[in-house]
Amino acid sequence: MQFLSDNSAAVHPRVWEALRAADEAQAPYDNDALSQRLDAAFSALFGREVSVLWVATGTAANCLALATICPPHGGVVCHREAHIEVDEGGAPGFYLHGAKLLLAEGEGAKLTIEGVRAVIDPIRDDVHQVQPHALSVTQASEYGLAYRPSELAALGALAQERRLGFHVDGARFANAVAFLGCTPAEAAGPCDALSFGCVKNGGMSAEAIVFFDLGLASVARYRRKRAGHLQSKGRFLAAQLLAMVEGDLWLANARAANAAAAEIAAACGERLLHPVEANELFVRLTAAERDALRGQGFGFYDWGDNAARFVTAWNTDEAAASALFRAIAAL
Amino acid sequence: MQFLSDNSAAVHPRVWEALRAADEAQAPYDNDALSQRLDAAFSALFGREVSVLWVATGTAANCLALATICPPHGGVVCHREAHIEVDEGGAPGFYLHGAKLLLAEGEGAKLTIEGVRAVIDPIRDDVHQVQPHALSVTQASEYGLAYRPSELAALGALAQERRLGFHVDGARFANAVAFLGCTPAEAAGPCDALSFGCVKNGGMSAEAIVFFDLGLASVARYRRKRAGHLQSKGRFLAAQLLAMVEGDLWLANARAANAAAAEIAAACGERLLHPVEANELFVRLTAAERDALRGQGFGFYDWGDNAARFVTAWNTDEAAASALFRAIAAL
Amino acid sequence: MQFLSDNSAAVHPRVWEALRAADEAQAPYDNDALSQRLDAAFSALFGREVSVLWVATGTAANCLALATICPPHGGVVCHREAHIEVDEGGAPGFYLHGAKLLLAEGEGAKLTIEGVRAVIDPIRDDVHQVQPHALSVTQASEYGLAYRPSELAALGALAQERRLGFHVDGARFANAVAFLGCTPAEAAGPCDALSFGCVKNGGMSAEAIVFFDLGLASVARYRRKRAGHLQSKGRFLAAQLLAMVEGDLWLANARAANAAAAEIAAACGERLLHPVEANELFVRLTAAERDALRGQGFGFYDWGDNAARFVTAWNTDEAAASALFRAIAAL
Amino acid sequence: MQFLSDNSAAVHPRVWEALRAADEAQAPYDNDALSQRLDAAFSALFGREVSVLWVATGTAANCLALATICPPHGGVVCHREAHIEVDEGGAPGFYLHGAKLLLAEGEGAKLTIEGVRAVIDPIRDDVHQVQPHALSVTQASEYGLAYRPSELAALGALAQERRLGFHVDGARFANAVAFLGCTPAEAAGPCDALSFGCVKNGGMSAEAIVFFDLGLASVARYRRKRAGHLQSKGRFLAAQLLAMVEGDLWLANARAANAAAAEIAAACGERLLHPVEANELFVRLTAAERDALRGQGFGFYDWGDNAARFVTAWNTDEAAASALFRAIAAL
Repeated sequence: MQFLSDNSAAVHPRVWEALRAADEAQAPYDNDALSQRLDAAFSALFGREVSVLWVATGTAANCLALATICPPHGGVVCHREAHIEVDEGGAPGFYLHGAKLLLAEGEGAKLTIEGVRAVIDPIRDDVHQVQPHALSVTQASEYGLAYRPSELAALGALAQERRLGFHVDGARFANAVAFLGCTPAEAAGPCDALSFGCVKNGGMSAEAIVFFDLGLASVARYRRKRAGHLQSKGRFLAAQLLAMVEGDLWLANARAANAAAAEIAAACGERLLHPVEANELFVRLTAAERDALRGQGFGFYDWGDNAARFVTAWNTDEAAASALFRAIAAL
Repeated sequence: MQFLSDNSAAVHPRVWEALRAADEAQAPYDNDALSQRLDAAFSALFGREVSVLWVATGTAANCLALATICPPHGGVVCHREAHIEVDEGGAPGFYLHGAKLLLAEGEGAKLTIEGVRAVIDPIRDDVHQVQPHALSVTQASEYGLAYRPSELAALGALAQERRLGFHVDGARFANAVAFLGCTPAEAAGPCDALSFGCVKNGGMSAEAIVFFDLGLASVARYRRKRAGHLQSKGRFLAAQLLAMVEGDLWLANARAANAAAAEIAAACGERLLHPVEANELFVRLTAAERDALRGQGFGFYDWGDNAARFVTAWNTDEAAASALFRAIAAL
Repeated sequence: MQFLSDNSAAVHPRVWEALRAADEAQAPYDNDALSQRLDAAFSALFGREVSVLWVATGTAANCLALATICPPHGGVVCHREAHIEVDEGGAPGFYLHGAKLLLAEGEGAKLTIEGVRAVIDPIRDDVHQVQPHALSVTQASEYGLAYRPSELAALGALAQERRLGFHVDGARFANAVAFLGCTPAEAAGPCDALSFGCVKNGGMSAEAIVFFDLGLASVARYRRKRAGHLQSKGRFLAAQLLAMVEGDLWLANARAANAAAAEIAAACGERLLHPVEANELFVRLTAAERDALRGQGFGFYDWGDNAARFVTAWNTDEAAASALFRAIAAL
Repeated sequence: MQFLSDNSAAVHPRVWEALRAADEAQAPYDNDALSQRLDAAFSALFGREVSVLWVATGTAANCLALATICPPHGGVVCHREAHIEVDEGGAPGFYLHGAKLLLAEGEGAKLTIEGVRAVIDPIRDDVHQVQPHALSVTQASEYGLAYRPSELAALGALAQERRLGFHVDGARFANAVAFLGCTPAEAAGPCDALSFGCVKNGGMSAEAIVFFDLGLASVARYRRKRAGHLQSKGRFLAAQLLAMVEGDLWLANARAANAAAAEIAAACGERLLHPVEANELFVRLTAAERDALRGQGFGFYDWGDNAARFVTAWNTDEAAASALFRAIAAL
């Protein structure tokens, strides 16, 4: 009964099928028929022309995207608890050649207009201070909160006003869409590039960088190779992504994970540190309570001294979710 | 009847089995049981303690390895036709933060003592010139030639004398070992780090960086994450590598590819630009001859105006190899 | 009656003399007799063997020093208001190839043991988080406060315990020594490298990087050239530094600046935001009060909405300092 | 009787005067009145609007300029013996974040249309190879040869056709103009940025980057600060440049150096490896002959085993030049 993370869950059977179906040799890199189909598949999904690159990890997706919208001497505004700041081992510093992350505050790891302004307004427009060149938000956020389309529109307007590029880290984008019940385009907002997650949602080793600004994609292609992320059997990455988005698997998987989280949330009440909008729960639990839960066979991470994080996945066992619901309710 | 490259061949059935067997969730990144077994598996293979990291591509393997032995202000001596110079989109410049490749000559894309000395001896030991810090050879070379253990020993001695790190790009290391009939350790020579290829040899998406200097591995671990190459479902990469090296699959596959190449080579005689020691053939062929072969259904790349490159793979069809033998013999 | 900054003050007559005396052609770069004398001059100053490089700016001095003690994938702990974080246009990101500044709190822009620990203790020792590799303090701090030798010793002990390199940004090092009345070695503490300021103290265009770890200097030499900071007429930089430290000019100049600041401070009383230990005053002043002072001919920078910063220099006019004393006292 | 180099010659008296006249404190960095005058002074010189930044070295000038016209994943075509390739300690790799120098051949270290095409035409337009983004030539070349305006126009046309940025390293630009007898604009050709040398021509520590594309200058300003090249007493750099170009000092000095070189050249005849068009002479001389010259008190560098390099400067002594003329003629 594991709720440690969705990032190492099993691969969905339809993804396995797609992988096997891609076995036969094709042109290498992204010259195969599957990779060539990605632009069309994602353009259909987003209702507009996009250009898509596969990569193996969310870190690579985020950093390759950001490198197209922020020069080495610039800065990227993100939340203080953004994944790119906290959990990527300094990858943005590497990919962006020393550009700086400019850290904003905001409830639930979400950027707000006020939070962004508090960071960028005091920056003097001179060469002594790193100037903001881009904005990056996480959809859903690191605390499992979804940006509403109106929030993204407002951030996008600010970005445009200040001439900032706009990136969305969508490691759990599907969970946000499933929660919001809006179109993928609405959930992405007016961004230039979106890291579209697949690994946490039933994939094996593929994420998509969706470029809404097509010119950026052609730069990112060179950067991807240069970063050692252009796999020669790229068809296997394309296959995973197509299996996800050419039907509704991406959404179905996210809905399943969200539903399991919602079920557990119902037992948590006041214990919740954040509303549960995606597939993550941050729950106030004493050490003794956590011990008790672990004693019953539940796996999860501590979140500081007085809380725990539970993450559901596309394949979270119904029985396990119910059991966790009961166990927390019984505390 | 494709002889375009081994880099997009099908995945070996035993690798598929290993992938499927790894499906169940485990600890993420390289904390799973399979990844944890890598050091032991490769230590057994090389008869000494090594530390091993998986990555998805040879470019990443080469560059992460090189970054541990050459500082940003240094230079890496390699052959003018080395893969890192010619075909990696400038990845060494990215990973090594602007370090320079110092290009040496040598028959068949192999470095020689003389070739290396011709590059490094004229470099004044002052700050105006980039100083050599490392040596990188490709085993088997870009023209399919294998370094003999004595050649590697000599290069290693030179590296030690000049305090140069020593890296081996082994994208087709298995083919070299299969040809040499020596131990893996002998075929790697006294190097600090080896990029051990798997993708071209029946794998899907995993290469190993084998560190003979264990301290370098602990640096490379941070660099791998920072480069976005630490996959969360890393067990699938480890599974591929273990399927290869815990038995003799890596060697069996390479032998099969080499044998197919040798069969074809027998038809080529004077047409060969280089001896065929691994699974690549560089064959003098006029445009008309190439047209003729393509007309018979053979796929391959032109190599300049008067030659062609044929590459065999672990699964090269026996009939196809024989057919190519006959077709060339009949020209 | 300018108190804007010491960073653009006139050049001291003895520095001019030294410059003129260096006019005759000598060996280029740092092969001239003056540059060759630097190690000895600074070794005498610090009472131990040091290796010294000149550069033109404090930013270059700081970043070249830091690049020798922190790898690209590491982090440097500094104060949130440190010059390297706030005022160097992202130069550390450039010179350290994307390494991260890890920001600590502390009164008066001074690092404390507790402040440093609050930053580094929570960092998990895994590859997902940037690990601390170095500590950087500013002597005197950005608010004009001097680290006591005991404070530096404690920070140095922490650095050693945690295997962190230790750098001191001494843009106003002379002012700190003048205030502390200790030896230069005591004011530098157990650091690996010190940026020894000269430009703010009567120089024209030379700062010294003093390496207490001699091995670091030999790396920095390559990095200096690579950064375009190896001037061919380097003798003019060496001349400035020697004019400063072969006598007591560096200390005399700092004492003069400190004395002027102390005189003005005597009028400020409760208005002072920080004790005045060097040559900077941060003074609570309403907008009206600042207008009044400016009306009397005083030049200075606003410091936020309710304060102003006054900086004295080696050549601050006695009359001007007295006038400012009276003007503030009369408010 | 030194002919070692012009790069460490004495500073011209008028430059000294300008330095002294700039002593009084002004606004820091490039906000002083002198720095603010640079654009106008150089616009007058080139007969069109330009934007100018001072820096301390030619290496910094070249690399800051190149960084504005070549992205990190791109390549800069330059001559195999270009200063940026051979003598800058890998600075382009640092400033351009790992971009590659693509080395072309050409007589006398001059690029030709054919030489450039031989480098860029074979580059496949795919992500595996570094694509050319810029061209860099040296005016006068590393062997003292001046590009004719027609040659620059042709290279500029090629650059435009292939969408390459165009940079001119003018460390000895004045010498080229003096030789060509054309306007500065003609000697710079249709380039985007010119490194305009001053140090080798009687300056102390200032070079100008002249941007003909004004947008590039605004990027370079941030990069200059980030590289630690924004000096706070920048007025002293501006003063040097203005002393040079607000009158004809830059040209007078170059003419003097060229004249001295021409006088010596007259003695060399067949010994000359290259025509003498600027202030450098490459002269075939046996070891014995070199010994003989050194025995007579002449200083110069060996150039390989059978030649020597002599460089004249703005202040080369008339008597010394004549003496060298006689000495070579007498060999």
